[in-house]
Amino acid sequence: MTALATARAAQGLDAYLDEVEARLEVAVARYPGLAARAGSDALGGGKRLRPLLVFLAAPVGVVPPVEAGVAVELVHMATLLHDDLIDRAALRHGRPAVWSVHGDDVAVATGDYLFARAFGELADTGDVRGVEILAEAAVSLSRGEALQNRQTHDPDTTVESYIERCGLKTGKLFEAACRLAGGSGPFGLALGIAYQIADDVLDCTGDAADTGKVPGTDLREGTPTLPLLLAASVDPVVRDALAGGSLEGALVRVAASGALEESRAAARDYAASARAALNGALWRDELEALTFAAVDRTR
Amino acid sequence: MTALATARAAQGLDAYLDEVEARLEVAVARYPGLAARAGSDALGGGKRLRPLLVFLAAPVGVVPPVEAGVAVELVHMATLLHDDLIDRAALRHGRPAVWSVHGDDVAVATGDYLFARAFGELADTGDVRGVEILAEAAVSLSRGEALQNRQTHDPDTTVESYIERCGLKTGKLFEAACRLAGGSGPFGLALGIAYQIADDVLDCTGDAADTGKVPGTDLREGTPTLPLLLAASVDPVVRDALAGGSLEGALVRVAASGALEESRAAARDYAASARAALNGALWRDELEALTFAAVDRTR
Repeated sequence: MTALATARAAQGLDAYLDEVEARLEVAVARYPGLAARAGSDALGGGKRLRPLLVFLAAPVGVVPPVEAGVAVELVHMATLLHDDLIDRAALRHGRPAVWSVHGDDVAVATGDYLFARAFGELADTGDVRGVEILAEAAVSLSRGEALQNRQTHDPDTTVESYIERCGLKTGKLFEAACRLAGGSGPFGLALGIAYQIADDVLDCTGDAADTGKVPGTDLREGTPTLPLLLAASVDPVVRDALAGGSLEGALVRVAASGALEESRAAARDYAASARAALNGALWRDELEALTFAAVDRTR
Repeated sequence: MTALATARAAQGLDAYLDEVEARLEVAVARYPGLAARAGSDALGGGKRLRPLLVFLAAPVGVVPPVEAGVAVELVHMATLLHDDLIDRAALRHGRPAVWSVHGDDVAVATGDYLFARAFGELADTGDVRGVEILAEAAVSLSRGEALQNRQTHDPDTTVESYIERCGLKTGKLFEAACRLAGGSGPFGLALGIAYQIADDVLDCTGDAADTGKVPGTDLREGTPTLPLLLAASVDPVVRDALAGGSLEGALVRVAASGALEESRAAARDYAASARAALNGALWRDELEALTFAAVDRTR
């Protein structure tokens, strides 16, 4: 059994994720119109990793509110919509991105719609502390996007500031998923950073057929990820490509530089930190399995 | 004394708006970074009409939480940022719009940041019902923007569906401002529609020096507003311009068609509906004055 299959085998998880799936459809369709339709189109293909985390971070035997899983997934979807627009990423989960089908204005509006629906869903539980947690995560996502703007085409971005970006763009919503269920925030944060580093390695190596995304996007966009920064520090051609120069042969040189292995090791270190942050009577084996699955994947 | 001055004379209002102003700055600056800086730049020049409405909709003697005024203003600012980006409006409150200074990606991220901060601020009050109200208004704003996309360049847009858009884009946040303070939702909704119609008339007639916006934007963008729809129904040249044809002389013909007076009358009708919806021990004279000020203004 693979690590992810172990995590997914937790008793009651399938039923919870089915409920999340059904409720996601209802939540997005609730106010009919173009935003609801574009949002519904964007529902498919996601891994539902954040709702899964909500379930596993709760104490064994306690099923967290379905609205919590729905809310974190909606915030995630909203961010993907806006990120794809900003990055001009044409594919998401192997399908055309919302901006490329409906235009920029609808992509902005649909992202806003999903954000607002997330807070509406969570407020339905009456959990005002949960709303604070989600708002803080949403703030972090936007700060991460703004930080990425400042780092674009800057090969002198420090690893520390790259890790900060990973925390803001991915870690804080993982953290929120855990905290919404009463679980360990530090676990979620470290897992999210590990996951993001692994994602950034996949962008250098992945196959569009597996990942549903166009590979090499980060280098083309000048987004300084860990593998690109590490390779740039030893290879002037990669450094020049990251700074906005010619991309010719640069991705191959990233692979040749050893930066991918070094980045994978960094991801594994964060996964280990996540495991060390586990405590309490939660789905420990499953969460540990998740930390391995996060850094060892092809999509 | 003008109608607006009457509304602004309510005892305690100045102190409340000062508090809102101070708290807005703190709320936007709370998580330092580019989004906070771009958001702070966008703080100036607003009329703070929605926080004013929060105060006046509360029962006399009850000062609503400052967070409620801050939250509605933040949602409004977030929407302006995203709308200006979508509409490529270069000026806002007489200053360069965020997208034109910082770029599209920062404008998207900063709008998301302000949205998230709004929910964070409101959650601080512990008022989960308030979060639901705000989330519903934010959903409406995005639906209004998506509806506008569908109506663009369509001179056959019905007046009914234009009014629906006014309700979604402006009325629902006015309604939320009133409801957050325990006041009359229907008053806010009707006032917001009146205000939006007046705004759309100003777009045909206004002076950039007064409004801080470039006039004629709606016709150029093909946004079917009430004055443009009414003029298009009697003048094929305006109809053609609204549908995306030549703009030559079209704005002058809108004025010549009588559509501006007819639209102003419609705005006054909604203002009257707003007054009719007033009940309870709130700032009645001031709210009534506001309905006159909303439809009789130069900015």
